[in-house]
Amino acid sequence: MANNKPSVPKGTRDFSPAEMVKRNYIFDTIKSVFRKYGYQEIQTPSMENLATLTGKYGDEGDKLIFKILNSGDFWGEAESKKQKTENFEFSSKSLLPVLSEKALRYDLTVPFARYVVMHQNEISYPFKRFQIQPVWRADRPQKGRYREFYQCDADVVGSESLINEAEFVMIYHEALSKLGLKDFTIKINNRKILSGIAEVIGKPKLITDMTVAIDKLDKIGIDGVTKELIERGFTETDIEKLKPVILLQGSNQEMLRDLKIVLASSPIGIKGIEEIGTILEYLAEFLGTELKSVNVQLDITLARGLNYYTGAIFEVKTNEVAMGSIGGGGRYDDLTGMFGLKGLTGAGISFGADRIYDVLEELQLFPSGATTTTRVLLTNFDQEAEKYALPILQALRNKGIAAELYPSSAKIKKQMTYADNKNIPYVVLIGSEEMSSGKLTLKDMQSGAQELLTKEELIEKITMD
Amino acid sequence: MANNKPSVPKGTRDFSPAEMVKRNYIFDTIKSVFRKYGYQEIQTPSMENLATLTGKYGDEGDKLIFKILNSGDFWGEAESKKQKTENFEFSSKSLLPVLSEKALRYDLTVPFARYVVMHQNEISYPFKRFQIQPVWRADRPQKGRYREFYQCDADVVGSESLINEAEFVMIYHEALSKLGLKDFTIKINNRKILSGIAEVIGKPKLITDMTVAIDKLDKIGIDGVTKELIERGFTETDIEKLKPVILLQGSNQEMLRDLKIVLASSPIGIKGIEEIGTILEYLAEFLGTELKSVNVQLDITLARGLNYYTGAIFEVKTNEVAMGSIGGGGRYDDLTGMFGLKGLTGAGISFGADRIYDVLEELQLFPSGATTTTRVLLTNFDQEAEKYALPILQALRNKGIAAELYPSSAKIKKQMTYADNKNIPYVVLIGSEEMSSGKLTLKDMQSGAQELLTKEELIEKITMD
Repeated sequence: MANNKPSVPKGTRDFSPAEMVKRNYIFDTIKSVFRKYGYQEIQTPSMENLATLTGKYGDEGDKLIFKILNSGDFWGEAESKKQKTENFEFSSKSLLPVLSEKALRYDLTVPFARYVVMHQNEISYPFKRFQIQPVWRADRPQKGRYREFYQCDADVVGSESLINEAEFVMIYHEALSKLGLKDFTIKINNRKILSGIAEVIGKPKLITDMTVAIDKLDKIGIDGVTKELIERGFTETDIEKLKPVILLQGSNQEMLRDLKIVLASSPIGIKGIEEIGTILEYLAEFLGTELKSVNVQLDITLARGLNYYTGAIFEVKTNEVAMGSIGGGGRYDDLTGMFGLKGLTGAGISFGADRIYDVLEELQLFPSGATTTTRVLLTNFDQEAEKYALPILQALRNKGIAAELYPSSAKIKKQMTYADNKNIPYVVLIGSEEMSSGKLTLKDMQSGAQELLTKEELIEKITMD
Repeated sequence: MANNKPSVPKGTRDFSPAEMVKRNYIFDTIKSVFRKYGYQEIQTPSMENLATLTGKYGDEGDKLIFKILNSGDFWGEAESKKQKTENFEFSSKSLLPVLSEKALRYDLTVPFARYVVMHQNEISYPFKRFQIQPVWRADRPQKGRYREFYQCDADVVGSESLINEAEFVMIYHEALSKLGLKDFTIKINNRKILSGIAEVIGKPKLITDMTVAIDKLDKIGIDGVTKELIERGFTETDIEKLKPVILLQGSNQEMLRDLKIVLASSPIGIKGIEEIGTILEYLAEFLGTELKSVNVQLDITLARGLNYYTGAIFEVKTNEVAMGSIGGGGRYDDLTGMFGLKGLTGAGISFGADRIYDVLEELQLFPSGATTTTRVLLTNFDQEAEKYALPILQALRNKGIAAELYPSSAKIKKQMTYADNKNIPYVVLIGSEEMSSGKLTLKDMQSGAQELLTKEELIEKITMD
């Protein structure tokens, strides 16, 4: 084994220093906005009891949960189970609960629901939490899809107020703007509007089929949607009623006005329209004349995991790069019901950090200093110069400047390459001349310019820069 | 299941908002010091190939690695293996490689070694990396011992310079001082000194037994150590030679001087003494007159996982609270040899974050603001006041102040309790009087003092505070 080059499991990644700096830049920016809106960080264990996770993600999801093999003599357990259980046959299905009782979390939502139920008496509601942690899925790895990836969620539970929804729009706007994105759309819809539409076309039970089909309008056009609706059991008449609705256009206010007419006979539809109206009003109150800078658009084809959401639905797309959604979320009325705590309403959003990373990379939006960690390298010519350098190094660090001394008197070219590779902007050259004159040579690695400075001048220059 | 109160797997923990703020305070402090010394962050996947981990931690360690059950029809794989393999009997041992090919990382050191070997051509040496991620061990949980816990490591590979060791002492000193610890000891020893001692007492092969015994001097005293040495095969004569060495006392310089006499006949012992001497000299160069503030002490009974270290050995203890070591590390000469890359020397240290947390808690050293996340809560009396509050909320946030509006017009007592529970220092009361006068009531939640301020005065006060 010792001579096989080691590898990482497929679908997993190492993050190099340069990647980590960029990832931290994204996460730190989002965290700072979450905190500004009163969201507080929690963390949950990577492992949950298998029973906490199974049955929450559908059959397909259950298969993608990474299970942890029990420690100790797991096979002894299996044999003993067989002896004690009549008609027990070994199979992957029968053995799973014997061999495994824990699994890696699959998302942050179910662990959050479990957290809320477990800590319900310590929590002060409304509880606004954010959580940024890895999740694991045994999906087939492909470009942009990993088996370990970070989710980045903010949720509020215990508050019905639509101020929360308005704030989610603002959180998206603020975080993505801070990251340098200029042209992105925050799409909003409401599950109740979708219910209303299904009602008025007379097919309330086919709401899921309807939304799955119209959600694809962007991609397959109205003819494609028509074809799919027919396959899913809609009649020509239904489609004739539906078409003008899903093709509604105009400003948010115009669409709401038109929808109010179309959905007049559906109380739930009207409720959905009112909710969207209220959210937009809150945004206007918050932002005043700045409102126009926030690109929030009603999109009545937006569905996103519909069965989950009960009110507002969000999705964010960048218009600068071809890329799937970079964020999404919505309101759900019964997050914790699965763990026996009924009637706790909540709403949440999430940021797609990996995709945002790719967008910023493509648009070259990472700040130029984003890969700089060490600011100054002191070169090391010989033992005497090394000794001379140590108090200077210490003085720089005392000013809070990240600084290094090259730890051996290697060839100067090698030391310069080290500075280059590590993206260190300044190098201080300390040779016999410098030591006798007391003036150090400071080299700006980008421009190549060199200047002679006293220790004090050097520290001041780097501190100010 | 729906009515069973959910739980987390034993040995794992949720971290509440208040705990997260304190944990982040510790990690952020340590990270900032790592960065100042030129260490860069990396992350490795939570899962490694089982082959990467097995055989690295001894038989006992291998048992404690959490293995991941293969996805799909694992039992089909097992049956097919039995069919294809002569004399294949089902057992936990024979099935393990069939049922599992991945495992959760057990520490950060082996994944780091794997990282270095995998990325050896991209890395610019010396490579100074830090890594703060969770690790998992199937240990029996007990007070202070968890199955998931964070490690916090900094290592340098590809540099023999003892400047690295001197900098580790400084990193410990700086990070722990920043965290508010006042009285702690950074113990230092050298594996070569231990080898030298074993040589001069004529028992070079019993070095492990010797160090395991003398490492306990603190706890069991010289009589206990004597007893254990005899059990481990040392003669009275050996112990007579050893005693004066391990009981050496005095300043570091005095001990080095005495050791030089005792170990005169052991070249390796002398080398160890010289190395410690050089590290102390570097510290003196770095720190000048500040040297005396750094409590670094030569402790020749210090061993710590001896077989691993080849040079310097570190351990940090607080003297303010009864607690095991809060940090440790040392130099190893062949980190990556296990993956076929020979001769790459390295050195590293680690911080025991969970123990540091407990120490700071016990000494009440967390800054009083450390649990504050939101700075201001605007109360919500009724719809009109809510509307009035939104632009104020926005103005506060535009100044970077974390602020919230209570999202419904609940009883004022409930809103105050919310602020209290969330440790929010300021509450702004907005009632009809405030709206008509344009002056808002700002309540300082700690002192209880209230004052009437204009919106501008209020923002200024909170920004300045």
